[in-house]
Amino acid sequence: MTIFEQVDLWVSRIPGEYEHASQKKEIRQAIQSRLDSLTKPQGSLGRLEDLILWYGLVCRQTLFPDPAGVVCVFAADHGIAASGVSAFPQVVTVEMVKNFSNGGAGVNVLARQAGLELMVLDMGVNADLSFLPLVKNAKVSYGTRNFLSERAIAPDEMMQAMKTGFDLALGLKSQGKGFLVLGEMGIGNTTSASALISALLDLPPVLVTGRGTGLDDQGYRKKLGVIEQALLFHGPTITFPIEWGMAVGGYEIAAMAGAILGAATIGLPVILDGVITSAAALLAWRICPAVKNCLLAGHVGHEIGHKAVLEHMGLSPVLDLDLRLGEGTGGVLASLILKSSIALYHQMATFEEASVSGKTG
Amino acid sequence: MTIFEQVDLWVSRIPGEYEHASQKKEIRQAIQSRLDSLTKPQGSLGRLEDLILWYGLVCRQTLFPDPAGVVCVFAADHGIAASGVSAFPQVVTVEMVKNFSNGGAGVNVLARQAGLELMVLDMGVNADLSFLPLVKNAKVSYGTRNFLSERAIAPDEMMQAMKTGFDLALGLKSQGKGFLVLGEMGIGNTTSASALISALLDLPPVLVTGRGTGLDDQGYRKKLGVIEQALLFHGPTITFPIEWGMAVGGYEIAAMAGAILGAATIGLPVILDGVITSAAALLAWRICPAVKNCLLAGHVGHEIGHKAVLEHMGLSPVLDLDLRLGEGTGGVLASLILKSSIALYHQMATFEEASVSGKTG
Repeated sequence: MTIFEQVDLWVSRIPGEYEHASQKKEIRQAIQSRLDSLTKPQGSLGRLEDLILWYGLVCRQTLFPDPAGVVCVFAADHGIAASGVSAFPQVVTVEMVKNFSNGGAGVNVLARQAGLELMVLDMGVNADLSFLPLVKNAKVSYGTRNFLSERAIAPDEMMQAMKTGFDLALGLKSQGKGFLVLGEMGIGNTTSASALISALLDLPPVLVTGRGTGLDDQGYRKKLGVIEQALLFHGPTITFPIEWGMAVGGYEIAAMAGAILGAATIGLPVILDGVITSAAALLAWRICPAVKNCLLAGHVGHEIGHKAVLEHMGLSPVLDLDLRLGEGTGGVLASLILKSSIALYHQMATFEEASVSGKTG
Repeated sequence: MTIFEQVDLWVSRIPGEYEHASQKKEIRQAIQSRLDSLTKPQGSLGRLEDLILWYGLVCRQTLFPDPAGVVCVFAADHGIAASGVSAFPQVVTVEMVKNFSNGGAGVNVLARQAGLELMVLDMGVNADLSFLPLVKNAKVSYGTRNFLSERAIAPDEMMQAMKTGFDLALGLKSQGKGFLVLGEMGIGNTTSASALISALLDLPPVLVTGRGTGLDDQGYRKKLGVIEQALLFHGPTITFPIEWGMAVGGYEIAAMAGAILGAATIGLPVILDGVITSAAALLAWRICPAVKNCLLAGHVGHEIGHKAVLEHMGLSPVLDLDLRLGEGTGGVLASLILKSSIALYHQMATFEEASVSGKTG
């Protein structure tokens, strides 16, 4: 089976907007009716009510108390890092995966704080990490190729990476997990993400490229130049979105796109983090627009490409905190708001239970 | 002592912007230095870094792990409710206080979720609530007067209400509490808050008045008319901000203004919720601008007066979720972000501890 056939097969299993329509209508009505019975002015929970409806419609359930959330950090190295597009050396990918394994990174702290399970997936880090506790081995290779001069990912690698993500989503659902926060680590991956966003949104790189982990002016100009050159190099040979994923993507981006396709297939709510996870969402969405239903934009961050993707996909971010750490940190913070919304929906007293009077007139 | 003398005495104890300047500079440097040593690109926690600095500067401490937060709901009735300015009958104030006492309201759920202690203070509810567990009696009277035709609050009542809040803040600090979220309940209190905001910002009522718990067009026009009439009635006799507080305020608003003055005196961080708590903050700020240092705007909500106060005071909200429930709910949600920021600051590994490489070049 080619990657194209595999993707077609996946897409054929994703329910569209108009499927299960009457069931979804019933769920929407049941949730709204419960929301309106709670001791609060109607609609006064604002965006929180949207989150509750979104969650129920993705799972196609009306009761979902205290869902168990998982944040998965997909880690991989990027050949493009050799072109000097990051403020940090490539070895930081390995070092940060060790930091995750030891519990010392930002996402570790936030996952503990939010009560989420943390998974770390080695999709293609440039070192043998099989000895690390907590890190699950799903290595495709020791890093992508440098996409300035060749395709970053071969078709069989793309299939393997996407399948890892797809199967992960299905596995989490079957284990009864309630939602998945996407996170990533990979030196050079904002370059890969911006190139992908630029290609898939057909916007010039300067409109979707930021300074990543902190490039100075010179570094930023170099990064822009690399992306422009890569798009010119690959463009003439490309017809389908998935081919852009192979040309300039990363193993972690491919895996997250696969996870989103899987999540859309079985109704697992997914919370996006920053620009890299959003690039993965954009790729999955260009492959199958119906994936949008299962996605929540956790936050909008510092990278301009992030905002461009959310606006283009029509996703409204829960938080706006000027974050640019990645790792899933913004998604985990948003999960606090989601979990609070769900608690309100299940635990608040109704007007009847609390003997509170309704509106006059 | 008159209310004016009492307020002057309180204000004299609040440290100004330039007091403790060298200590604050050291604290700022120490916190920034630790932030920059953590395994993340510098500044990449965005707004969270601002929250950490704010918290440390208010407490004048560099280490503050896992602060114990309290949300206090100040409840009171309003004479203006008799003029038909709310979508709900006045008895809902009592009924909701019972709901708080039974654990069924929105703020109960969120406080449990966020691990905050919940206090409910009866500042002037129109019923004897002394039999209710959890509700602390600080009743000034059974509700303010209708400010359409007389001053809502007498000077001795204002002093009593403000002193309750002031002493509460001092008490919480001496018990080692880490921050205070302000919340409120009182049918009619968005009318009181909007009138106060209109007067103190010198903006026409239409620019700072919303639909409260859900007025229709006719109700909204009535509410606007009531506020305009009240401002015209009281305006000619008023010189000082505190007099506006007595003219059109509420016992809960006075108590929260007092709590903010107390918090500013002893360095207790305060998180604001919606338009009512913001009106209290505006009153405290007009009495003593230095109170601003201890304030965090938890969110910006649906009521236009809320946004007007935050913009005028230069407070940037943590969340923007279109909430209009009050009770402290938006403040408690923001406390989740604050607590997560504080956890990151204390628990993340440093570059040195985790052997992670720094920036190149």
